[in-house]
Amino acid sequence: MKETHKKSQIQLNPVDSIAIHLASSVKRLDSEIKKNIQDKEIIVTNIASHLIMGKSKKIRPLLTLLFAKILKYKGSAHFNLAVCIEFIHNATLLHDDVVDGAKIRRGKKAANLIWGNKLSILVGDYLLSKSFKLMVKDKSIKVLEILSNTSLILARGQIQDANNISNAHLTEKDYLELIFAKTAELFSVSCYLPAVLANKSLRIQNELKDFGKNFGMAFQLSDDYLDYFGNSKKMGKNIGKDFLEGKITYPLIHCYRNTSKTNQIFLNKILKKSRRNNIDFLKVLKIMELSNTKLESLKFTNKYLKKAQNSIKRFEGDSDKVYLDNLINYLLIRDH
Amino acid sequence: MKETHKKSQIQLNPVDSIAIHLASSVKRLDSEIKKNIQDKEIIVTNIASHLIMGKSKKIRPLLTLLFAKILKYKGSAHFNLAVCIEFIHNATLLHDDVVDGAKIRRGKKAANLIWGNKLSILVGDYLLSKSFKLMVKDKSIKVLEILSNTSLILARGQIQDANNISNAHLTEKDYLELIFAKTAELFSVSCYLPAVLANKSLRIQNELKDFGKNFGMAFQLSDDYLDYFGNSKKMGKNIGKDFLEGKITYPLIHCYRNTSKTNQIFLNKILKKSRRNNIDFLKVLKIMELSNTKLESLKFTNKYLKKAQNSIKRFEGDSDKVYLDNLINYLLIRDH
Repeated sequence: MKETHKKSQIQLNPVDSIAIHLASSVKRLDSEIKKNIQDKEIIVTNIASHLIMGKSKKIRPLLTLLFAKILKYKGSAHFNLAVCIEFIHNATLLHDDVVDGAKIRRGKKAANLIWGNKLSILVGDYLLSKSFKLMVKDKSIKVLEILSNTSLILARGQIQDANNISNAHLTEKDYLELIFAKTAELFSVSCYLPAVLANKSLRIQNELKDFGKNFGMAFQLSDDYLDYFGNSKKMGKNIGKDFLEGKITYPLIHCYRNTSKTNQIFLNKILKKSRRNNIDFLKVLKIMELSNTKLESLKFTNKYLKKAQNSIKRFEGDSDKVYLDNLINYLLIRDH
Repeated sequence: MKETHKKSQIQLNPVDSIAIHLASSVKRLDSEIKKNIQDKEIIVTNIASHLIMGKSKKIRPLLTLLFAKILKYKGSAHFNLAVCIEFIHNATLLHDDVVDGAKIRRGKKAANLIWGNKLSILVGDYLLSKSFKLMVKDKSIKVLEILSNTSLILARGQIQDANNISNAHLTEKDYLELIFAKTAELFSVSCYLPAVLANKSLRIQNELKDFGKNFGMAFQLSDDYLDYFGNSKKMGKNIGKDFLEGKITYPLIHCYRNTSKTNQIFLNKILKKSRRNNIDFLKVLKIMELSNTKLESLKFTNKYLKKAQNSIKRFEGDSDKVYLDNLINYLLIRDH
């Protein structure tokens, strides 16, 4: 995986590099976001600003802007689209944080802790509604069809996620369906809707759809991996969060499938506990060593990254595409 | 107000009468609702069924079906529209019940108590997303523009509501804006979107918009009234709920404005308490007697009902319109 070699090529975080590369578009994106979270109810603007104008990397809308550039899209509907996508994403974050009782989000105190659950839920609803209102603005039924479906899939994915807490029997297939719904679908539309706006061929649309999907799957799998095997110092957050919450992710699924019956019984028991602690986590890491879960999880993530790489091979615009390569390489090596 | 006289004319609850009058359309509506809450995630179907297929009177979608009939609309898009409206309404109910920690909804255990806050929030998101997906189906940009805006207004209204808890200084003007947003707007679109679908003149659209708005305002004001002065035995629910939660509604606004400085100070103090009890409620009712709040609240509600009556005076179809009259009369006399 030539980690050291690749690491040395990357100076900045690759998402920040994209933002710099697209500086003038990003400026317009930010001003559109700012404009659209202005509401006569000042509390809406405050809560939405706290979240969106905070330390958000805005990777999804940046991908939208980048693909619009790669496809030489001449219109300006991609700005509106990028705002919609960011609003949908932030609506789910607000609700997620209520659901998880989060304390920190993007390095700041979570909105639910400052303004309470009530306003976090309602401002989430506001952002989701606002994104639909914005979507309608450009009058593209095609985009509306796709994005309203995405929003539904996203909600279903989060329901599947919540519904599988502590379920040691979650299969790899169901898990992949779940992360497609909760993460990869929104990445996918972020990448291929610019091709819809630009009236590109179905082949191009599908290639970008696949890129986004596979990148999104890898993005989630990498997150799942890091929550077990990441360097918490480098990441600036603690590892083991998913496990402590009873969330079933790829490493646990792999380990469960590749360990002894005794260990399976132990894992099952530990997941059924109402609370897990750090000692439980260390025990699970020990079992994962025996099942070679760290390496296998990495390989599994990389499989999706390779697929993503393949989807965009035929695209022109090397000076733009290098940013996608950097992004993929970053996930390949991220913090391990 | 000729209450006894009018009461004797009404055999059934007037909402149920509309449902019987429109029986075949209601059958189709119910089957469309049933179809659209089927999801491969069975938990979605269960939670949504529990709420929507329960003892819901479905007053909003019934108004949609009734106006489609009054306007002799020939298409079938009003079914889809009615489902959308009911889904938006139920999404807000699910979120409201989480926000308020509700125990009972429509005579049954509230969803948040059975499935928890997490799934209630997420199934609310699902229903909102589903309603947008359904909206797009008929490809009417005009309807999409109106309904996505309604959804935004609704979220803003609930934010205003949550944000004014215990605020004794809420003005009548701000309160009217708030209940327009949280209640009357959705009634308004339920009534006038059939005219949009049927390509009726702007005059007709505006008359129905006004009818729905004024009826919706009265609907909320009547609810607010009953929470202070209703007959809890007849209503099957306890009175004083709004007051105990610190919700500011019309009776409190009226009373505060029409009472002595000493009572104002008392009201303010009682609202600032972290919890209120039944003794506080009885004290407030006593103050309301002095300010003649019961009668004035009734008059205020009736003002909107009269406006609603005026908006539909010129409409044809007496055999259908009588149901609207009954509905208005029911609010005029409801349980007092």
